Amino acid sequence: MSPPRPPDPTDYPDLDVPPRILLGPGPSLVDPRVLRAMATPLVGHLDPYFVQLMDKVQALLRYAFETENGLTIPISGTGSSAMEAAVANLIEPGDPVLICINGYFGTRLADMAGRYGGDVQTISRPWGEVFTPTEVKDALDAHPAKVVAIVHAETSTGAEQPLDEIAETVHAQGGLLIVDAVTSLGGLPVRVDEIGIDACYSGTQKCLSCPPGLGPITLSPRAEEVLSKRQTPVANWYLDLKMVQEYWGSERSYHHTAPISANYALYEGLRLIAEEGLESRWQRHRENAELLWEGLESLDLTMHVPPQHRLTTLTTVRIPEGVDEAQVRQRLLAEYNIEIAGGLGELKGKVWRIGLMGFSSRKENVVLLLSALEKLLH
Amino acid sequence: MSPPRPPDPTDYPDLDVPPRILLGPGPSLVDPRVLRAMATPLVGHLDPYFVQLMDKVQALLRYAFETENGLTIPISGTGSSAMEAAVANLIEPGDPVLICINGYFGTRLADMAGRYGGDVQTISRPWGEVFTPTEVKDALDAHPAKVVAIVHAETSTGAEQPLDEIAETVHAQGGLLIVDAVTSLGGLPVRVDEIGIDACYSGTQKCLSCPPGLGPITLSPRAEEVLSKRQTPVANWYLDLKMVQEYWGSERSYHHTAPISANYALYEGLRLIAEEGLESRWQRHRENAELLWEGLESLDLTMHVPPQHRLTTLTTVRIPEGVDEAQVRQRLLAEYNIEIAGGLGELKGKVWRIGLMGFSSRKENVVLLLSALEKLLH
Repeated sequence: MSPPRPPDPTDYPDLDVPPRILLGPGPSLVDPRVLRAMATPLVGHLDPYFVQLMDKVQALLRYAFETENGLTIPISGTGSSAMEAAVANLIEPGDPVLICINGYFGTRLADMAGRYGGDVQTISRPWGEVFTPTEVKDALDAHPAKVVAIVHAETSTGAEQPLDEIAETVHAQGGLLIVDAVTSLGGLPVRVDEIGIDACYSGTQKCLSCPPGLGPITLSPRAEEVLSKRQTPVANWYLDLKMVQEYWGSERSYHHTAPISANYALYEGLRLIAEEGLESRWQRHRENAELLWEGLESLDLTMHVPPQHRLTTLTTVRIPEGVDEAQVRQRLLAEYNIEIAGGLGELKGKVWRIGLMGFSSRKENVVLLLSALEKLLH
Repeated sequence: MSPPRPPDPTDYPDLDVPPRILLGPGPSLVDPRVLRAMATPLVGHLDPYFVQLMDKVQALLRYAFETENGLTIPISGTGSSAMEAAVANLIEPGDPVLICINGYFGTRLADMAGRYGGDVQTISRPWGEVFTPTEVKDALDAHPAKVVAIVHAETSTGAEQPLDEIAETVHAQGGLLIVDAVTSLGGLPVRVDEIGIDACYSGTQKCLSCPPGLGPITLSPRAEEVLSKRQTPVANWYLDLKMVQEYWGSERSYHHTAPISANYALYEGLRLIAEEGLESRWQRHRENAELLWEGLESLDLTMHVPPQHRLTTLTTVRIPEGVDEAQVRQRLLAEYNIEIAGGLGELKGKVWRIGLMGFSSRKENVVLLLSALEKLLH
């Protein structure tokens, strides 16, 4: 048998990508400096140049996470794989686990925790609301848990979860706290060490201004100790953090082949954060979000989340009665090249989701979006 | 507490990557057209443009795998994650599994299969040799297996495993055959449909001339059926092929965010394969490998694998007595910017590994390497 005939080249034209303005829940726009880094020729993953770059990426990630945790690395997969790394490594079969669900990603955490054999309890809040420390304390009093997982910035609802007192509650019970910072890292304070988060993870395609493909994660010394005392092997080979750590650590033991180009990109994205400074960056995200909120209100639109718990990185706006929400999104894309997103799960058909993250968080993007929305809605 | 002080910019200079000629076991050199694709601005992962690109990537992957399998997609992780996807999805706890180990990656398959609860039997051959169909048959007669896993192109040894009769043997017993084609896909015939491979996976950083970061995989209809009849959920959320398939299929159900840029790159890398044509491409890999072998022999070096089982994509050369193998590699890198690799596992210190894969498989690279080796060895 001879090999199949080659595909007809006319079916596979040159890449000819529409110039989108990405104002949805991610991916966000990638900084041009990061795009340039992506096009850099490769070195080997054990090349001395790449080895020192890995160290620098780790150091810059510690700055972004506001931590001194040794185990701070980019997982070689998207943010979802970093979520799974946290769950797979800290949960052993039979471990009691509490998952706080107030959106899509809490639900996903519960799904993953179940797959790794966790004895999963959940508490829930309506999508768009946040948990009080008392709710978490009551749940833990009823069912003590080894691991509590909660989402800092719920991409599906636009709500920011306060974490300080919840972390105290979890630690008072001897538990570990996993925090999802996919939509907050690099856009608002995550304060891993100050809060005492035990495992915190994110993705590169939101506030880090990089393409999707890596999932930064950091583990506290307490979490590392739990990891070192596991009774069972981690059920997941690719995300086994002990092996990944030996690859990223001074041993450089071969595990998998790190995505070289994605790490070039992350290095550049993190350098941009260091140059801007975290506080200025948070301030920029806040200013552009406030400009957006004011503009949306003056279009008679209502935010889904009250101001005190509203994310600056991702805004949910209620769909006005009588408006075909999908058509508005399609017209934004077709007529203005602007991407925003609809709602997920409970909020499907009820909200738009507007992201202003990383390189997308720019005054000109806000003004353009408001102007386009005004034309489409009025 | 205020955020940490920004890192000192002088510690984090611009990327300044040495111009390496990558002739190791991967990553290989990336085609300049692929590098340019990597720098393309992003669209959203649910953008109509990206959705049609996903279809095209799948169609081109089918050409590369020589298959008509519907379930043919790039996993959003490196080749190791695609290996784990095959294992995690086809093995349920308690399933009898036979792993054929004649190198590093067979050992890894056995590790993974154990983590997913497989009842793992192994057969072994010395590193550099291949299995006969009789060996596989005898092992299956003694312990029938639901899944047999074997490596087509062992990156750690340079041996090519003949598969036709082994596939017949496995199917005669009603088993499924998993084949590792990380170092063969795009460099030599893989013939998924002709051989009847049930799950075949690869990585993008070898013969596909792309950066590491995606793991193409294809499943036969028979494997899809086994998947659909699982009694237990796949223990791995990120690699759960039913969910990944719904994301890549006509449903486009949200699962994770595909690495957009890596898929742009894969599209371009696969277009290059379609333009060159598989047969010309295999021929190019063979001609450059033969040029290398002749040159190495005229330097009085000996190949580790006999010609009939020697990979054209990855050559293992025995280290001559009295030669400091690490020093030779260091000098190749320092003086010529050429990367080759040492041996892994059983072959550590005994061989060099020279890869001529994808864009790295070029006459000028062979001639340069031979010339540099001659200067360093004589």
